[in-house]
Amino acid sequence: MDYTQLLENIYQSILPYAKEGKQADYIPELAKVNPDQFGMCIHTIYGEVAAIEQADTRFSIQSISKVFALAMCLSIKGDALWTKVGKEPSGTAFNSLVQLEVEHGIPRNPFINAGAIVMADILLTHLGNPAADFLQFVREVSGTDTIEYNEHVAISEREKGYLNAAIVNLLKHHGTIENDIEEVLHFYFLMCSIEMSCRELSQAFLVFANHRRRFDYAGVVLTASQVKRMNAIMQTCGFYDEAGEFSYLVGLPGKSGVGGGIVAIYPLQYAVAVWSPRLNAKGNSVLGIKALELLTTETQTSIF
Amino acid sequence: MDYTQLLENIYQSILPYAKEGKQADYIPELAKVNPDQFGMCIHTIYGEVAAIEQADTRFSIQSISKVFALAMCLSIKGDALWTKVGKEPSGTAFNSLVQLEVEHGIPRNPFINAGAIVMADILLTHLGNPAADFLQFVREVSGTDTIEYNEHVAISEREKGYLNAAIVNLLKHHGTIENDIEEVLHFYFLMCSIEMSCRELSQAFLVFANHRRRFDYAGVVLTASQVKRMNAIMQTCGFYDEAGEFSYLVGLPGKSGVGGGIVAIYPLQYAVAVWSPRLNAKGNSVLGIKALELLTTETQTSIF
Amino acid sequence: MDYTQLLENIYQSILPYAKEGKQADYIPELAKVNPDQFGMCIHTIYGEVAAIEQADTRFSIQSISKVFALAMCLSIKGDALWTKVGKEPSGTAFNSLVQLEVEHGIPRNPFINAGAIVMADILLTHLGNPAADFLQFVREVSGTDTIEYNEHVAISEREKGYLNAAIVNLLKHHGTIENDIEEVLHFYFLMCSIEMSCRELSQAFLVFANHRRRFDYAGVVLTASQVKRMNAIMQTCGFYDEAGEFSYLVGLPGKSGVGGGIVAIYPLQYAVAVWSPRLNAKGNSVLGIKALELLTTETQTSIF
Amino acid sequence: MDYTQLLENIYQSILPYAKEGKQADYIPELAKVNPDQFGMCIHTIYGEVAAIEQADTRFSIQSISKVFALAMCLSIKGDALWTKVGKEPSGTAFNSLVQLEVEHGIPRNPFINAGAIVMADILLTHLGNPAADFLQFVREVSGTDTIEYNEHVAISEREKGYLNAAIVNLLKHHGTIENDIEEVLHFYFLMCSIEMSCRELSQAFLVFANHRRRFDYAGVVLTASQVKRMNAIMQTCGFYDEAGEFSYLVGLPGKSGVGGGIVAIYPLQYAVAVWSPRLNAKGNSVLGIKALELLTTETQTSIF
Repeated sequence: MDYTQLLENIYQSILPYAKEGKQADYIPELAKVNPDQFGMCIHTIYGEVAAIEQADTRFSIQSISKVFALAMCLSIKGDALWTKVGKEPSGTAFNSLVQLEVEHGIPRNPFINAGAIVMADILLTHLGNPAADFLQFVREVSGTDTIEYNEHVAISEREKGYLNAAIVNLLKHHGTIENDIEEVLHFYFLMCSIEMSCRELSQAFLVFANHRRRFDYAGVVLTASQVKRMNAIMQTCGFYDEAGEFSYLVGLPGKSGVGGGIVAIYPLQYAVAVWSPRLNAKGNSVLGIKALELLTTETQTSIF
Repeated sequence: MDYTQLLENIYQSILPYAKEGKQADYIPELAKVNPDQFGMCIHTIYGEVAAIEQADTRFSIQSISKVFALAMCLSIKGDALWTKVGKEPSGTAFNSLVQLEVEHGIPRNPFINAGAIVMADILLTHLGNPAADFLQFVREVSGTDTIEYNEHVAISEREKGYLNAAIVNLLKHHGTIENDIEEVLHFYFLMCSIEMSCRELSQAFLVFANHRRRFDYAGVVLTASQVKRMNAIMQTCGFYDEAGEFSYLVGLPGKSGVGGGIVAIYPLQYAVAVWSPRLNAKGNSVLGIKALELLTTETQTSIF
Repeated sequence: MDYTQLLENIYQSILPYAKEGKQADYIPELAKVNPDQFGMCIHTIYGEVAAIEQADTRFSIQSISKVFALAMCLSIKGDALWTKVGKEPSGTAFNSLVQLEVEHGIPRNPFINAGAIVMADILLTHLGNPAADFLQFVREVSGTDTIEYNEHVAISEREKGYLNAAIVNLLKHHGTIENDIEEVLHFYFLMCSIEMSCRELSQAFLVFANHRRRFDYAGVVLTASQVKRMNAIMQTCGFYDEAGEFSYLVGLPGKSGVGGGIVAIYPLQYAVAVWSPRLNAKGNSVLGIKALELLTTETQTSIF
Repeated sequence: MDYTQLLENIYQSILPYAKEGKQADYIPELAKVNPDQFGMCIHTIYGEVAAIEQADTRFSIQSISKVFALAMCLSIKGDALWTKVGKEPSGTAFNSLVQLEVEHGIPRNPFINAGAIVMADILLTHLGNPAADFLQFVREVSGTDTIEYNEHVAISEREKGYLNAAIVNLLKHHGTIENDIEEVLHFYFLMCSIEMSCRELSQAFLVFANHRRRFDYAGVVLTASQVKRMNAIMQTCGFYDEAGEFSYLVGLPGKSGVGGGIVAIYPLQYAVAVWSPRLNAKGNSVLGIKALELLTTETQTSIF
């Protein structure tokens, strides 16, 4: 299959929707990004790679970083992780984020903010040099040495992050968090601030698609069963309020970020990353979801 | 592949867990069932069938009936259905069923009780002879003429069904329900009371596994896209509080019932039904989940 | 003090507000009432009585009946009543009535609907002839033989009473209710349907104002301490979402009904009833609250 | 009446309960207090004063300070205050403090923590020198120059104050709070840390009991109507989950603190303060409530 041609065709098909949605603007750094960008890259387990448009432009991966954090936490804690965070979908956020996200101090899953904050705390406790170690893992799994945090974004998010600060205080009140609140928040926002391109993300997620290949990067070692667990969580919890809709439209496990990126995998076949900053009402990239929907339709690779 | 031998091997492997869990006993009819039964049947899209142990014993399918109801409602209403019921997972039931299941009168998905009650109301409105029409659809899709409701079970459930009665009153208060409350409850419990065997269920769900085959049974017509939608909802909402766990352990879309039955499908390959009355704490069959976990592991057919 | 002149003056002062608010219209019988009526009557413990305008026109007392029900339940159960219903204010109803009104099957206080439904169940269990006995008590405490239920109103309320039906089913699910659901609902709505005039209500409540006088009517016997308890509950729970505001504006324990009636007492001095069908957004009579505010200001009888 | 003898008699009557309950111990400073202390003081509007036992020992007034804060905020903002904080009771805290205390950013009343935090923010905005000005007001209204904050207590509370920090972050997220979060929290805890004796508290609250006397202390000026409003809020909201019970047992508006103090007033007659560190399950002083119950019974001064 000519993947480059396929991606080009997809891009042409979705162009009519290019002005739909608007980018995140709750912090200045995200608001400054040119919203009219699009990139897409696919890696197959057979070594094929196709990349189009701004596939090499880096953007803020935001919540996609939670997948990397989960990989590290699973490697460190194993099944003991599930005593501190659940693994079931969180349901529509019909009420307050704060209340719903934390039940008796246990967030519902690792991909809601409360769950990711608990993972930040775990990494702070167990890593020798948390910021450096996390970055090193992301670099190794992506095969790129130049990936960096964007400290400006991290600091800017902290300044507006009252809801996350409420969550971390509530977790601390319940005894779920061990480390200093500001350290936890800073590290959480720092992980979210990593900037990667579609090509780098797609490369990095290939290892989640291929659980027959040994997972061992920068000391983060996962069994095939643990990778399967991560895919299951991406499937049921990867898209907040739109997990069911994404499941139907695209039919692949994946994770989105408020920076406009989406990564998805078709187990034992490929990983794909797409990026476009304009978001729909649920916070997912408009062009990103449309591109993935076409991809799975054209290649008949929906898991359903 | 020798599926009969495979199922026999699976059965031998799970026997050590045969006394774990206990059957549903909130109504006398379910409490009277011999808990030490097990049946399993698989149908592939290539025409293979394998069935072991009590695969031909009928049992109360209970919530599995919600899949049949959804097929009929989608056929009747199309996408207009989603104005009356959501399609996102409901999250852990951390609080009251009543409150969480109904937001502003709209249940979160068709497989929670509130959602299924709304579907019962829709069928009452649109079917000429609801009880007969629903049964006819189930019979045709299963290829069996002798499937019946168990009116005793339906009446018994109504007598204890205070929580469901609270839900339907709340839905009526919000204007979501059109028909008489008692009629809606009776039809809801009647659908749940259908008795089928593993062989019949597996046969019936094969059409959901094979969306390239035309879906047209007793006037219920679904497009390939609608079947895909049903699979996506089974994947994210089919197991209440255990959707994430089932997704990981088994990795297939499916639906469980409190009678001890579970049906699951591997798209474009097979449908499988398993039954054993002893349930775990979340209300799913202990042996059923273990059997399906082994099946997907042995056949490498998890979607992840 | 010339109470008749005082009431007349008050009436003149509030006339400018006579067209504010609108009457309850969720059932036809309440919607049919002429909204432009006003009555007021005061009884002092020294035997003075003053009544103006439609003080002798009967109206649907609705939730004011909960005070009579509480008197009977306290007489029957004593402090054991508080195991089935709480005695603390319920707070602003910011969410669902159903969920908030019932916690683990125990309503927060006797004056919210859930609490009054529990009292209806208790009376059904303990009274020989509940409907007749309750009516007899109301007649004796009012000193009037002709007070009656309005069965049309009761039946009409049941027909629209989905929210109350949801509440009673939830209570039954929790085991708080002993009797048949429809019997409980019918008796609850029947008690609410009693029709009384301001003169009759004011007379009836005088006994709550005067806890030095023996409380013994139709076999309902209360100690001075129990009457004080009833006053405390009227003070903190008598006006739903407006308990705090009424406390400030009027400064007396009391109870309002959606029919436009309000009764209030100044302990050891007087009882007063006022009626006007037009309600504010919180469901309390506009002219009623204004009249009581002026009364306590003029007579310096706020408890604060 | 010989108030000293009365208080002595009350003290003798409640001695059998002297070992019931336990003092607050969530911060070291409160845990260190000798729990077996008791003080009581009454001031009448006619100038009578009676004080017994440790009536001159200062203790941490904690939440009683919210009454002083409300007086200042009402003086500054007038009725505009009610756009930032409600005035209705909050109901039993059946769920999470955080969620229930803040609805759309508006706390339910000024005496729950969220409400008091909003008042701290208002005072920070409007006072020239908040800490000094607040202290000066408390000193003037108490007629004592030596009242001080206990900075150790304030700092200690901040260190453990994760729940309050969650609340203030949530308020900030909703835009209710103008000032820096740490400044707000510090000032909130500082106000709570004031140490006063029963004699000083009783003296200070006499002005709330006597709304015919001009209220003007350190620039804090209240109308008679505003004082009445404060009494109404003390009546319905002064004792968290025990407002209804206190209303019945004691029948006076008042405010309790976790340090074991309670102040209550009988409008136009007296103010009374009582202190004993051992608390009941709801956080109110065991001996304090018993003493006040006896006082109102003996003097027949319950408002009911």
